[in-house]
Amino acid sequence: MTRSTPQHMKLGAFLMTDGHHIAAWRHPSAPADAHVRFDHFRNLAQKAEAAKFDSIFFADSVAASVDGDGVFSHTSRGAHFEPVTLLSALAAVTSHIGLIATQTTTYNEPYHIARKFASLDQISGGRAGWNLVTSANSREAFNFNRDEHLLHADRYDRAREFAQVVLGLWDSWEDDAFLRDKDRGLFSDPGKVHVLNHEGVHFKVRGPLNVARSPQGRPVIVQAGSSEDGKELAAATADVVFTAQQTLRDAQAFYADLKGRLRTYGRQPEDLKIMPGVLPYVGRTEQEARDKFERIQSLVLPKVGLAQLSNLLGVDLTGYDIDGPLPDLPLTNNNRSRQQLLIAQARRDNLTVRDLYLFVTGGRGHWQLVGTAEQIADELEERFVKGGADGFNVMGPVLPAGLDDFIELVVPELRRRGLFRSEYEGRTLRENLGLPYPHHPAARQQREAQLALT
Amino acid sequence: MTRSTPQHMKLGAFLMTDGHHIAAWRHPSAPADAHVRFDHFRNLAQKAEAAKFDSIFFADSVAASVDGDGVFSHTSRGAHFEPVTLLSALAAVTSHIGLIATQTTTYNEPYHIARKFASLDQISGGRAGWNLVTSANSREAFNFNRDEHLLHADRYDRAREFAQVVLGLWDSWEDDAFLRDKDRGLFSDPGKVHVLNHEGVHFKVRGPLNVARSPQGRPVIVQAGSSEDGKELAAATADVVFTAQQTLRDAQAFYADLKGRLRTYGRQPEDLKIMPGVLPYVGRTEQEARDKFERIQSLVLPKVGLAQLSNLLGVDLTGYDIDGPLPDLPLTNNNRSRQQLLIAQARRDNLTVRDLYLFVTGGRGHWQLVGTAEQIADELEERFVKGGADGFNVMGPVLPAGLDDFIELVVPELRRRGLFRSEYEGRTLRENLGLPYPHHPAARQQREAQLALT
Repeated sequence: MTRSTPQHMKLGAFLMTDGHHIAAWRHPSAPADAHVRFDHFRNLAQKAEAAKFDSIFFADSVAASVDGDGVFSHTSRGAHFEPVTLLSALAAVTSHIGLIATQTTTYNEPYHIARKFASLDQISGGRAGWNLVTSANSREAFNFNRDEHLLHADRYDRAREFAQVVLGLWDSWEDDAFLRDKDRGLFSDPGKVHVLNHEGVHFKVRGPLNVARSPQGRPVIVQAGSSEDGKELAAATADVVFTAQQTLRDAQAFYADLKGRLRTYGRQPEDLKIMPGVLPYVGRTEQEARDKFERIQSLVLPKVGLAQLSNLLGVDLTGYDIDGPLPDLPLTNNNRSRQQLLIAQARRDNLTVRDLYLFVTGGRGHWQLVGTAEQIADELEERFVKGGADGFNVMGPVLPAGLDDFIELVVPELRRRGLFRSEYEGRTLRENLGLPYPHHPAARQQREAQLALT
Repeated sequence: MTRSTPQHMKLGAFLMTDGHHIAAWRHPSAPADAHVRFDHFRNLAQKAEAAKFDSIFFADSVAASVDGDGVFSHTSRGAHFEPVTLLSALAAVTSHIGLIATQTTTYNEPYHIARKFASLDQISGGRAGWNLVTSANSREAFNFNRDEHLLHADRYDRAREFAQVVLGLWDSWEDDAFLRDKDRGLFSDPGKVHVLNHEGVHFKVRGPLNVARSPQGRPVIVQAGSSEDGKELAAATADVVFTAQQTLRDAQAFYADLKGRLRTYGRQPEDLKIMPGVLPYVGRTEQEARDKFERIQSLVLPKVGLAQLSNLLGVDLTGYDIDGPLPDLPLTNNNRSRQQLLIAQARRDNLTVRDLYLFVTGGRGHWQLVGTAEQIADELEERFVKGGADGFNVMGPVLPAGLDDFIELVVPELRRRGLFRSEYEGRTLRENLGLPYPHHPAARQQREAQLALT
């Protein structure tokens, strides 16, 4: 199996139910019942696979975004599919595309998470990916026996140990542990199953996992944190980093910073792919693209925009003049890197509260591009070739239309430029992303011992 | 949609990876790599659906059955698919059959369980079922931060509260909570979403669940406990009871006992279906059936048989004379009703330890039938018409052959006798099982208020 050439960017389809834009469900082209329609997601996944995307990607939260003021009732985010069960169903109707879902380390147990992704990986033939996050809001805490949200530093401490346990459990069985020798009655080699016996601050987990080792060595690990804690955790354990930078300079700085941290952990720059989100509004003309953008922005109710901004900043903005400047804000205990990015954005561009909420209603802080296929390809190419990204997670503002537009208009343009594949290079997600195969520690030791002998 | 006639028995396919018999994987017809082959399960599920089975059913454990003596290495039970991810994938390639999986209440959180089954239910169009169990062994405890297994009574206390929370979360959104009014920008009716605010001994869960209400009202709840605690929990909350009785008399007694408990909870006898397991060895002649039985029994290694029996009894039998009688045993903290059933069986039939392990290697205490299709249909019919069962969970000793035999030979015989359907009556699992639709509490209250007015 050949690896993809380094000139090819990676593309993921980031699929919010009816679209990434908060008002997407109001758009005439969006199916308003997408949140309970499996066929909607099957169509999206199959289209992304036909276009040779590396992966589809689902966000997650272990709480409904329900609030006392009823603002939630103006959005479609209250109830939707749980992403791992959704991905597993999609695994059965696709063959090559990667299947990535967010699951929190804050309100989960590592044995369950290790097991679900290992199982998804077996079912899909090596296409599973786990977006490892810490929970971002206190609503989630209230569903799991807690009165308040874990502190930021504690969440990362737990996340680090959580990742360590999951990685250990994924190596419970060596690749050739299963002999399946019917005559001798020997199904597995007891010397090739490993008990973990983890005892740490947060977890005590004996193992082994009751799922075989992954066809791709282990599921792909995705991370999104851009804080110091987040970047160190990513450098230590992530295969893919999903991030948000508005400018080429910021993207380059983040890229260089993160890639530079890999050496400490014995890793090479190409061992981790940086794939920021991008929200494209594509038109056959620039005017058509602008019209699409304005159309969906016009569907945002002010109270919804303000609530979404408050949520992303981790600070309630009710009561402030929405046409005044963004006030000074206290540091949130939720997603801090996103808060700081948004504040910097507002200060740099002199945005009012309204400007800022209209900015996040679509992209939630991600990079927005409005233009023709050529213009959008120019931007993506520049960021890709100038060391700002290894690829992108494409966020359709409205679905399925936003994904259709990108596939029909932008993907062919990227192919003309030699920037994107026409066929999958491999069968597993790891192969298609061009990531090295993680050998089992026992196999690595054996190989090193052999090398030492020669 | 018409309900199935009461003369029809319900049939579930209970699918252990390569077969229910501990030595199934050694059988020449069994795929020894079934534990990592999704297509194996897809074929089984599609065959069971073509035969109009009500459901497929997967057992589960949150630990690998790995032991220090390496006995596990002679069985195929060490590593397999996680059942909910497996069912979700199967949901995408089936259309009518019910999808039931075991998940423990002992080492899980109710929000996650409520969510997974609600999501599976949406994905499958109302075909999900949850087999609610308490964990049966200490291996599971060691994977979840514990040094020892929860005590039997504590497990049931937790299970009761767990079920209460899950049922509450499943009613978070009323059936008509989603308005999806694009013009007014009103997606949901805030008056039709319910915060749970559960505060109990074991759990504090605010809710609401972030998945819409189930197409079948709520997923079907299955239970298997036959202890006093288990039967009371089943009478209060179960839609289906999966059980094990060897004789018609015991089956009738259990059936009458459990159905008699329903009234206390305001339920009718037909609101709960009793579906014991049955392990059929079917031949075109009686001799062929016996040969099949002897063939698979001959593949049992003594140390495997002894270990399986020890595991089911919750007591280590190593060191006892395997050709002597079953010794007196202490009450286990694991599955007590199974232990008591097995001890009673050994005493009644004067079984040696070897006899008893050869008895459980196939059925794990379930009812075994060896004979022609007519003989097996006679037995099932008798138990069905004489008040011992509403249907059966068919356990193929070896898969796929054991399911194939039952479908090709026994199902046509049951149909000739008018005992089993030729077409599904409904689309949801609940409809096919002939269970009443559970209306949302708010809708029930509204209806009662309307009735009071007229």
